[in-house]
Amino acid sequence: MNIRVQKLFEAIFTLEDMREIYRGSIPTGLDKGEETAFDEKIAELKAIIGELEENKGTARITKIAGTLDIRSREEECINIQPIQAAGRLTPEARKAIATYGDGYSTCDACRKPFRLDKITKPGIADFHADLAEYVHMDVARVVPGARRGFQAVAQSLVGKGDSVIVSALAHYTEFLAVEGAGGIVKEVPLDGKNLITPDATATKVEEVIRETRKTPALVMMDHVDYQNANVHDIAGIAKVAHQYDIPILYNGAYTVGIMPVDGKALGVDFVVGSGHKSMASVAPSGVLATTDEWAGKVLNTTAMIGDLTKRKFGIKEVQMLGCTLMGGTLLSMMASFPAVKERTLHWDDEVKRSNYFIEKLLSISGSKVLSEYPRKHTLTKVDTTGSFDTVAKTHKRRGFFLSDELSSRGIIGEFAGATRTWKLNTYGLREKQVHYLADTFIEIAERYELPIIG
Amino acid sequence: MNIRVQKLFEAIFTLEDMREIYRGSIPTGLDKGEETAFDEKIAELKAIIGELEENKGTARITKIAGTLDIRSREEECINIQPIQAAGRLTPEARKAIATYGDGYSTCDACRKPFRLDKITKPGIADFHADLAEYVHMDVARVVPGARRGFQAVAQSLVGKGDSVIVSALAHYTEFLAVEGAGGIVKEVPLDGKNLITPDATATKVEEVIRETRKTPALVMMDHVDYQNANVHDIAGIAKVAHQYDIPILYNGAYTVGIMPVDGKALGVDFVVGSGHKSMASVAPSGVLATTDEWAGKVLNTTAMIGDLTKRKFGIKEVQMLGCTLMGGTLLSMMASFPAVKERTLHWDDEVKRSNYFIEKLLSISGSKVLSEYPRKHTLTKVDTTGSFDTVAKTHKRRGFFLSDELSSRGIIGEFAGATRTWKLNTYGLREKQVHYLADTFIEIAERYELPIIG
Repeated sequence: MNIRVQKLFEAIFTLEDMREIYRGSIPTGLDKGEETAFDEKIAELKAIIGELEENKGTARITKIAGTLDIRSREEECINIQPIQAAGRLTPEARKAIATYGDGYSTCDACRKPFRLDKITKPGIADFHADLAEYVHMDVARVVPGARRGFQAVAQSLVGKGDSVIVSALAHYTEFLAVEGAGGIVKEVPLDGKNLITPDATATKVEEVIRETRKTPALVMMDHVDYQNANVHDIAGIAKVAHQYDIPILYNGAYTVGIMPVDGKALGVDFVVGSGHKSMASVAPSGVLATTDEWAGKVLNTTAMIGDLTKRKFGIKEVQMLGCTLMGGTLLSMMASFPAVKERTLHWDDEVKRSNYFIEKLLSISGSKVLSEYPRKHTLTKVDTTGSFDTVAKTHKRRGFFLSDELSSRGIIGEFAGATRTWKLNTYGLREKQVHYLADTFIEIAERYELPIIG
Repeated sequence: MNIRVQKLFEAIFTLEDMREIYRGSIPTGLDKGEETAFDEKIAELKAIIGELEENKGTARITKIAGTLDIRSREEECINIQPIQAAGRLTPEARKAIATYGDGYSTCDACRKPFRLDKITKPGIADFHADLAEYVHMDVARVVPGARRGFQAVAQSLVGKGDSVIVSALAHYTEFLAVEGAGGIVKEVPLDGKNLITPDATATKVEEVIRETRKTPALVMMDHVDYQNANVHDIAGIAKVAHQYDIPILYNGAYTVGIMPVDGKALGVDFVVGSGHKSMASVAPSGVLATTDEWAGKVLNTTAMIGDLTKRKFGIKEVQMLGCTLMGGTLLSMMASFPAVKERTLHWDDEVKRSNYFIEKLLSISGSKVLSEYPRKHTLTKVDTTGSFDTVAKTHKRRGFFLSDELSSRGIIGEFAGATRTWKLNTYGLREKQVHYLADTFIEIAERYELPIIG
């Protein structure tokens, strides 16, 4: 590991040990033994800072809890892993979990009516309002991942045997949410451009009605699919859904938190986003937003009464199971949120950088892009069967040659060994990082004498 | 804030800013501007460390992301909040989330068959095996909170209109899980000692069968209830459940992670624990463990097939919704786990300290303990109507006088304003902290001339 990065972690770890001394003390102050331990830790810390400053030294700490490696790939490398890019924490989120990591750290000031989204200190109630506004819906809840948002909606709206319209590229978690509710997925086919069209959706709805003699209970549609990251016409699809009086859930796992999302303008009934995928948050986290019209149905409060005690927990929402994200996950979302709102305004720049890279990749003869192009997103599926795979065919490391070449240059997150079709994500990379990334691919191509076009 | 604690946080925050410089750099190293920024941060860090060492200075940083206060109550105070005690992170967990906080940080080495519990680097697969062994069950999964464990089981076993036997002190999340599945809770009454007995459970089962003409689908029982933290006879209750062929879920939110739990010896079919309540983990986290007999039912893999694409996601578990805790939550559980296993061995000492404090509290004339006594747990419900509430009656701050007195002495986590019945938890406090806590209550009592007995 880069010695300065190593020392940054060691300094953080030493500070955590110092916090622990305070945690074991009494409020009147440290005792002699604690003072001594604290002084020793200060000395250690100063030595680490010295090494940090001089950019030398060796690793003092290599494992956490005896087994876990220090994860330094984000500091040391450029990470193009398809699903990790927009879930990387902001520094503010990292600071927030340093102080709010403890289990129920959100609950210090929980007062009547005892529900997470009502807590005002820290400003969780305001955050919920901000979240709803951010996706332009009436009401929002935080959930343990987008999938738990799908589940909440499916459990509320989908009955046994009901059909749910999804994309032919629907994420597996949509399948599972529908299955858990007892429903059946019905996939809308893609057109020649790998897009779900409103027309195809209408045709599918008609087909399902004809076959099952029942209107589908729900449409669940990915604005940006996880395979090609193409941008589908959600507004048009929503119109179709509503023509049949079917509510529509917008899967924004690849949009909410990185690009502007206006649920009202799109005409959708539910907006679901992922904290750990696109909102720079600790997993599992996410958002479920809806309209006033649907809130009563999906965010219904409990009606269960203890048969014996007559106990009621009236304010608790059944699908949320009461409180959802009671600590570090939520606080990371909240701490990242100002940066998330800001970065949403610069989505165009992200797309530009994505296209910059893809253009360079396409200049390596034989390379193709399988996603729509020019790109409208930072996640892209590429096909290098005609370029890097031709090298892999005869290389003793096979497809891993590319991983080797990339990782030796500090690029990680490609699917190790894959040289045919694979995905990458440039989200969040700075200008110079994207240039470095593109240059590296060109350099590797040149090394293996793959022709460069133009 | 204590200036040294303040400086510890400032140092951590500064180090996070320094990490961020690396995150924005290219793998060949920092550029001039980044070097300058890094040097400035080193200087800042050294100044902070200087202040830390000299134990002086003023706060440089007071808010995270502009709005969030630094949460330093665990460093500065003794926290007796009933639900927070055993969810406080270990230093190892704090170190783990510092490096594994990023959204999908678990997924670096996710390979076929692409499921969280199969990942070997970090050692998530082994951790799952360890977890199952820890509660002596056959198989374990991590879940986003104990409530999601209840939900998974209820969704799998409880049909519309089915009865579920619960305690008259069942936690509200059990109500919600049953309600979400379409079931109805049926409460077993407490005996004169506020305990659920096997006999009362049998009587209730009989009653439900008579009334509904159907055997209840599930028994869900809290080993330690959230109200009095009394220890109920789960082994006996499990025997009763099985006499009627009803599976039993063991709610270990207040046991798993702090006291030894042997699911096989208890004869239960499901063990559910809470990471953020009792396993020193980031929320939402928890564990659902079961037997080989029940695993196929509750951890069933998806059978849904895309009608058009014929897609199948065979290995994904429906109730888990695929992967559950993809990052910091899980890594905090894993990093705390060695300490959690170790502390479980010393549960007797925790109970001793709990009894030490309660004994002292009871020496304040008029104080009562509503939980079973001597205590078998560290969470306790007390009644100070006859002691501190007599002061509150005439004090201008009413019940808040006690909060004022406690917080001015560094004790927090009591329910602010409550001087009649309230709960506290001494879990995790060291010997000297428990002594300080007890002494403080006595001191306050003496100040208000409440008689001390013995």
